Amino acid sequence: MIFSEPLETLWQRRFGQDPPAGIPEAVVPFLRHRSVRKFLPEPIDPAVHEALIAAATSASTSSNLQLYSVVSVQDPERRARIAELCANQEQVKSCAWFVAWFADHQRLRHAAALVGEECNGLDYTEFMLMATIDVALAAERMACAAEALGLGVCYIGALRNNPPGVAELLKAPAGAVGLFGMCLGWPDPSASPAIKPRMSLDSIWHQEAFPDEASIGDYDARMTEFYQEQGMSSSASWSQKSGRRVDEHHLSGREVLREWLDKNQMGTR
Amino acid sequence: MIFSEPLETLWQRRFGQDPPAGIPEAVVPFLRHRSVRKFLPEPIDPAVHEALIAAATSASTSSNLQLYSVVSVQDPERRARIAELCANQEQVKSCAWFVAWFADHQRLRHAAALVGEECNGLDYTEFMLMATIDVALAAERMACAAEALGLGVCYIGALRNNPPGVAELLKAPAGAVGLFGMCLGWPDPSASPAIKPRMSLDSIWHQEAFPDEASIGDYDARMTEFYQEQGMSSSASWSQKSGRRVDEHHLSGREVLREWLDKNQMGTR
Repeated sequence: MIFSEPLETLWQRRFGQDPPAGIPEAVVPFLRHRSVRKFLPEPIDPAVHEALIAAATSASTSSNLQLYSVVSVQDPERRARIAELCANQEQVKSCAWFVAWFADHQRLRHAAALVGEECNGLDYTEFMLMATIDVALAAERMACAAEALGLGVCYIGALRNNPPGVAELLKAPAGAVGLFGMCLGWPDPSASPAIKPRMSLDSIWHQEAFPDEASIGDYDARMTEFYQEQGMSSSASWSQKSGRRVDEHHLSGREVLREWLDKNQMGTR
Repeated sequence: MIFSEPLETLWQRRFGQDPPAGIPEAVVPFLRHRSVRKFLPEPIDPAVHEALIAAATSASTSSNLQLYSVVSVQDPERRARIAELCANQEQVKSCAWFVAWFADHQRLRHAAALVGEECNGLDYTEFMLMATIDVALAAERMACAAEALGLGVCYIGALRNNPPGVAELLKAPAGAVGLFGMCLGWPDPSASPAIKPRMSLDSIWHQEAFPDEASIGDYDARMTEFYQEQGMSSSASWSQKSGRRVDEHHLSGREVLREWLDKNQMGTR
């Protein structure tokens, strides 16, 4: 286990303050998450692949519909091709195991058709949300289980940069849409990714109701300190960077998602 | 820890077969998830609330945007009201801690506006997907941490039954949409929720590419056995039930989600 910071260090790094009294030790491993992008060349045992998929499918799934699929990509050529589709991120190529997560309506459509059911509400937005939530619950249970084994994990949102390209490469049928990838592997101990600061709990967590006005508290100041520590030269604050991140000119291909979902009869009404 | 089945039992219950050799012990706790709906009256320590929110916010979040909020509802009257909005599910009233998870674009809009950024791409479908994924990653890390403490968890999709009602009750601003609730508490040992069978790994998990045809394998047969064990009288198979579940007449109010998201400028293009 290469990540083993004690609670005090973790809480300081995340929230810029000492932890409150009474935080149970069993929660501490779940605070240690960081995205790992440098991996050792060692493979992951195939039984561990099965264990992790089993953990994923043990997550809650709405009405037990299991509206998701996961595709592992290990063939070197296909891996290189999917890395290209994912903004050429190096860890997509170098990780020991790469999986692509799909919201998947088509397996249910297929199974239901065999027993004469039409699934004629599956194109409502409700079932796109449901599938998206179920995918992410499964993936994060896998991430937590992987981290409990000492593996590192990195989500790849860039899988959404080219939905038709991903569908073609992985032979996704209509009704199965790739939402994100995940890189897994044994962390390279010579790289040591930092714990990233998060907003204070009271920016995210509201008691009984939303406050009259949103607040990010001291987050810009803490993030500026973090950028400096990490040697990032930008003088922009988190608020500036993040505002620009959601500018209409930074969609990286993802502006086609609405159209792509419509084509897949997902979330059309 | 009231749930402690060994690996062999878990794998048999989930997949109807013996586990493969080499499943690591550290993954086993992640296989034990079931939805807990009967809780002891004991409260959860406030430090545990903080610990669980901290675990949630330690999850990956795309571009560190943190596009979510969580609202805890403990006031008895408000709890009763939110239970009504959630199809009167008993566990919403009786759980020790209830939290509602929101995709939240408005905190970023607010913070960015203060530094002169317009966020003018935030209404793309990409950022609705991103927020939905981030919410679910955070929630599931919380669920895993809660289960590591011996708590039980139940997701409440019915929070989507009445989006305007939820928004009004919890004072959600435009740009914050409730996606699901979560009940947490100490499991009542006199109730013993079963491990629910899931599709076989090879129905969900594809090597290199989707197969030519989807398959649920022996799942209908295993689920029919499960329904009988649980004393459920229905003669419909999982495929039949699930096909009907996504019929356009079973939206339970959720047919307004497209319109509600549009109103919140989420996923409109």
